[in-house]
Amino acid sequence: MRMVDLIEKKRDGLELTKEEIHFIISNYTKGDIPDYQMSALSMAIFFQDMTKAERAELTMAMVNSGDKIDLSSLEGIKVDKHSTGGVGDKTTIALAPLVASVGVPVAKMSGRGLGHTGGTLDKLEAIPGFSVEMDTEQFLKQVNEHKVAVVGQTNNLTPADKKLYSLRDVTATVNSIPLIASSVMSKKIASGAEAIVLDVKVGSGAFMKEFEQAKELATAMVEIGNELGRQTMAIISDMNQPLGQTVGNALEVKEAIELLKGEGPSDLHELCLTLGSYMVYLAEKASSIEEARTKLEEVIRSGKALETFKTFIRAQGGDDSIVDQLEKLPEATYKLEVPSPKSGYVAEIIADKIGTAAMKLGAGRPTKEAEIDLAVGLILNKKIGDYVEQGESLVTLHSNDKQVEEVQQIIYEAYQLTNELVTSPPLIHEIIKH
Amino acid sequence: MRMVDLIEKKRDGLELTKEEIHFIISNYTKGDIPDYQMSALSMAIFFQDMTKAERAELTMAMVNSGDKIDLSSLEGIKVDKHSTGGVGDKTTIALAPLVASVGVPVAKMSGRGLGHTGGTLDKLEAIPGFSVEMDTEQFLKQVNEHKVAVVGQTNNLTPADKKLYSLRDVTATVNSIPLIASSVMSKKIASGAEAIVLDVKVGSGAFMKEFEQAKELATAMVEIGNELGRQTMAIISDMNQPLGQTVGNALEVKEAIELLKGEGPSDLHELCLTLGSYMVYLAEKASSIEEARTKLEEVIRSGKALETFKTFIRAQGGDDSIVDQLEKLPEATYKLEVPSPKSGYVAEIIADKIGTAAMKLGAGRPTKEAEIDLAVGLILNKKIGDYVEQGESLVTLHSNDKQVEEVQQIIYEAYQLTNELVTSPPLIHEIIKH
Repeated sequence: MRMVDLIEKKRDGLELTKEEIHFIISNYTKGDIPDYQMSALSMAIFFQDMTKAERAELTMAMVNSGDKIDLSSLEGIKVDKHSTGGVGDKTTIALAPLVASVGVPVAKMSGRGLGHTGGTLDKLEAIPGFSVEMDTEQFLKQVNEHKVAVVGQTNNLTPADKKLYSLRDVTATVNSIPLIASSVMSKKIASGAEAIVLDVKVGSGAFMKEFEQAKELATAMVEIGNELGRQTMAIISDMNQPLGQTVGNALEVKEAIELLKGEGPSDLHELCLTLGSYMVYLAEKASSIEEARTKLEEVIRSGKALETFKTFIRAQGGDDSIVDQLEKLPEATYKLEVPSPKSGYVAEIIADKIGTAAMKLGAGRPTKEAEIDLAVGLILNKKIGDYVEQGESLVTLHSNDKQVEEVQQIIYEAYQLTNELVTSPPLIHEIIKH
Repeated sequence: MRMVDLIEKKRDGLELTKEEIHFIISNYTKGDIPDYQMSALSMAIFFQDMTKAERAELTMAMVNSGDKIDLSSLEGIKVDKHSTGGVGDKTTIALAPLVASVGVPVAKMSGRGLGHTGGTLDKLEAIPGFSVEMDTEQFLKQVNEHKVAVVGQTNNLTPADKKLYSLRDVTATVNSIPLIASSVMSKKIASGAEAIVLDVKVGSGAFMKEFEQAKELATAMVEIGNELGRQTMAIISDMNQPLGQTVGNALEVKEAIELLKGEGPSDLHELCLTLGSYMVYLAEKASSIEEARTKLEEVIRSGKALETFKTFIRAQGGDDSIVDQLEKLPEATYKLEVPSPKSGYVAEIIADKIGTAAMKLGAGRPTKEAEIDLAVGLILNKKIGDYVEQGESLVTLHSNDKQVEEVQQIIYEAYQLTNELVTSPPLIHEIIKH
């Protein structure tokens, strides 16, 4: 088998066989297929797409390229959740203890963030003492005892995907549905997921700007999962404005805690309850989505979800008193209001710009090496559809620097105001099932 | 300027600017743009094509990547010829002295072959003593004195093209009209050509199997040449059977000499006269194609063309007595007939298979390092349209090995016989001018 012939085959729109795909991925991982052939193949895939069977095989080939986490010692069906990423997305922090409270085992491998804010690991580290480092034995023991644990990804999980993703990033081949879908699904499956709930974001703040693209990606991932025997479904959720009201690491932890207390913004609540219901349902802890949702509402109301969160924090070495004393979380020195330049209805909040503002405050990493300031971020006082008076605060900046003119300017660019009444966009656009 | 953005631009079907194309080629040549980005771009070009302006700029960028041969000290308009390659193509050997005889300066840079037989340089080396090594000063002096010289390409001619071609070869991006056309044209222009005559082969023995493809390539090259101020035209000629009767290095030299004597097969004669007429016309040594052809016929008839060939051989250190004593050329030990297995008309001679047979005899290089046997090859006793009796010889093998069963088998696969009367295919399919 010669790689050049396989590139030509794909270039000409033919289907690669299982053996060919595994040949490509295993040899690329070993370094026996050079980057210049892999990038040519990726570009050919960009133009010629892949069939359902090819996508599933590509996913499994990447799973097999490295370690596979064995969760078989855990009781119950292991359900994982994945979000394609957006601004202000703190759902994992709330969902982990929430679904664990109704008996779903949450053995979560998560990552650090590059961009607007940190990733889930960074956010959890805003809790004093909280550690995401533990070995596999401890990890499994914690899930068996407390139903929930969150750790960093092991280094050798889907190395083929890591290598390929770095290559795609510099060869303009990121934006390919089969390559994105297999990348996401390979990580989930290698992490031991038996069922998967996907949150595919769509809108100005998401990777997928258009609904049709988002639906195509969601469908591709659901098909891969089901093809590979992992029950998978996807929610297409709105990212035309940031999720919830906070953007920033400690601020997002606070908002997640508020949700577990039955408080917090309605969009975040709705998204968590929807994603959570499907997780509970796929884990077979409820016989219908409705029953699953009722159970989740019950553990919030009873305080059980909050208790699980405290247990989870303690298990990972954190100070669980922050749950009742939110002021113990890292706090920025300055709270600065950004007054509205005029009166009107909020028509749009360009999420990317809000993300950039958060990053400028220090909440995110512009480069891999950069340090995150866990305390800083911003609170959106107005969201789409809200009416704001001139001079009223649009956003509260949490900053450790008094000079925020540049950030303020970005906030003004993000907020689009109009005199017309505006209806808030629907949060959940579609649910994709098998 | 970032390469990844330029790949994306081409991927999305947009036109690259002059500056962008020169940025890409100069940085790729220097090694500042890695192969994996260049191969992704090449695949994007495969799918998205290039505009006329882009093709011309790519050609010039490759010309500028290395040395440019300065032929300005030579009198007259420097016309070069290029063939896209086929089996039994010895036109350069005959054309060089032929057009030089009517006053066209022939300052030819040529290459060695990889494949069925050697290249023009290898073929010329079948003449005892003939050398293709000389410095630029000698080269120019010889052309000024004798109107004709053939040397090996300098190492630093279009290094970008060399590097890119090697990459395309292993990334399934060879077969792209803009990339092929700019590769050919850059070499011609860097070699100092002011006018260019192209021989684009079409048929089973050519790179382009279909007429439409061949026409597209020919048109692309003619457009590039004219866009860059080099008068260019192309002949689309048939390669559904080998050209002439001989395949093999010394055998092809013999056939070229026969042509200069006014003998030899009619297809080779017709092609040389057609290509030659356009060369003479573009060099402004005749005011019409018809006049050019008459002049060429005259120098053959008068023996001047043959004399020029002798002078050319002597100037490059060769033994010109071979012209009158062809037996002085290297000769194979065995001449073995391949008898026809049945009677019938020759319907097809699969040129690729004839080429493979020649290579098996030792006439070509399967790898860069392989040595060529200049004496061996084959003579086609029957061509398309000829009638052959059972047992009559189809081909005479010139071999230094008595065991030729395998080669004979390939010959049988190449020759397709039929009971129906067959018309020989036209030699010249179309002429593409500005």
